[in-house]
Amino acid sequence: MILGQVFYSMMNNVKIPLTHPRSVSLHIREKLVEGFRIGAVAYEGLIAHGRGESFDYLLGEKTTKYALDAIRAAACQLLLARHPIISVNGNVAALCSDDLVKLSKTFGIPLEVNLFYRTDKREKAISKMLKKSGAEKVLGLDTKSCTSLPELASNRRRVDIEGIYKADVVLVPLEDGDRTESLVKLKKKVITVDLNPLSRTAQTSHISIIDNIVRVMPLLNQILFDFQKRKKSFLDNYLKKFDNKKNLDGSINLIRGNFS
Amino acid sequence: MILGQVFYSMMNNVKIPLTHPRSVSLHIREKLVEGFRIGAVAYEGLIAHGRGESFDYLLGEKTTKYALDAIRAAACQLLLARHPIISVNGNVAALCSDDLVKLSKTFGIPLEVNLFYRTDKREKAISKMLKKSGAEKVLGLDTKSCTSLPELASNRRRVDIEGIYKADVVLVPLEDGDRTESLVKLKKKVITVDLNPLSRTAQTSHISIIDNIVRVMPLLNQILFDFQKRKKSFLDNYLKKFDNKKNLDGSINLIRGNFS
Repeated sequence: MILGQVFYSMMNNVKIPLTHPRSVSLHIREKLVEGFRIGAVAYEGLIAHGRGESFDYLLGEKTTKYALDAIRAAACQLLLARHPIISVNGNVAALCSDDLVKLSKTFGIPLEVNLFYRTDKREKAISKMLKKSGAEKVLGLDTKSCTSLPELASNRRRVDIEGIYKADVVLVPLEDGDRTESLVKLKKKVITVDLNPLSRTAQTSHISIIDNIVRVMPLLNQILFDFQKRKKSFLDNYLKKFDNKKNLDGSINLIRGNFS
Repeated sequence: MILGQVFYSMMNNVKIPLTHPRSVSLHIREKLVEGFRIGAVAYEGLIAHGRGESFDYLLGEKTTKYALDAIRAAACQLLLARHPIISVNGNVAALCSDDLVKLSKTFGIPLEVNLFYRTDKREKAISKMLKKSGAEKVLGLDTKSCTSLPELASNRRRVDIEGIYKADVVLVPLEDGDRTESLVKLKKKVITVDLNPLSRTAQTSHISIIDNIVRVMPLLNQILFDFQKRKKSFLDNYLKKFDNKKNLDGSINLIRGNFS
């Protein structure tokens, strides 16, 4: 919670000045811990966040030119989609619920809760966070509107008929490799946000944004806003020129260079 | 909990076969989550564990020749010490309480609980874990035997007169940079275990073991056992030849090579 020049760390019951060199990273962490407390984030989610922090540190904790290029390509892909969808897990909701809902409402892209470690309690907690941020509809919760996709790993099989099931473009931030591979096999265009350019998720997706989701979401909102005025041919061309493999290699080389 | 060919994941209420490709890493994680549940591990500890996992993955999840060299140097340093001490935090206790206590009892090196996020509850939970593993005495708990070291960061000031205060050699696994720097300034020989060779902790310590503590502790026990039969001149020579900076560069280059 930000109070003037400090934020209050519920995690450690201390006030942290906003001038603290790790203030941004610590503040992001607090959001996640708050998500854990209300049942939206799994233990696994806290540990996964730590893995992300390492790679963010190796990337210099900023949006690189490679990430910006991938965000632009993602905006094109989402604007060209007939049925785009955003898959939301606990970490994603905890870290950027407001930006997600803003994106969803502004550009008409539905949100679907889809969890690896699925429990009713966690699903409800995530849906509550999204609704608190202003979401009117959250897919993936009503068993009657859901079906089973055997191609997806067991916990993930349940998908919404109006959401992932019929989607042609799926934005699945902070995902695992199995999931991403399955969605690719189902011939969907997969966009991911992942801080590890070597991960199976990053290596398998069609568009891999190697950046912190906290920085990605406001940028994606802005770029979608700018690009929606462009012609279809501009979006098509941008996508045609975008080379995910080359883009990933750019991030890998950048990290390798920082590692010394 | 290991049950025949599976272990039971309390974190996710599922059984995980020991043949699972990530079985070892998942099992280590379970230990940490169990430590969190009983109040020994902080939120921060779960996230820090994730950061470690990233670097372990980049190291190939095995003890490298550089780590082995550093473990040997650490054994020499501990055997040559007049007053060695091991500083224990929540993650360390959760991950290798049994091996810590074995080392402490076999080689007469006391254990001191010293926490960054200190609470009485956490201190007690850690002490309980160590005692469950067979520890007879745990330093750092009795305020009467403790004093304040202003050179240490605020939460860490309280140290045991019989422990860190009078120690000449301090093994501080999984530590933060401020702490390590302060101990170095106090002219203590500092040995650390850290998976990130670029961290301030690793860069500041006299002997930095770049490896997973779960692999380090049994090896350190074994090497101490072997080396205690050696002459003082052997230990002195080993330490004289050990170059921490060069050793760290070895780990850094190895990770850089794996990053592609």
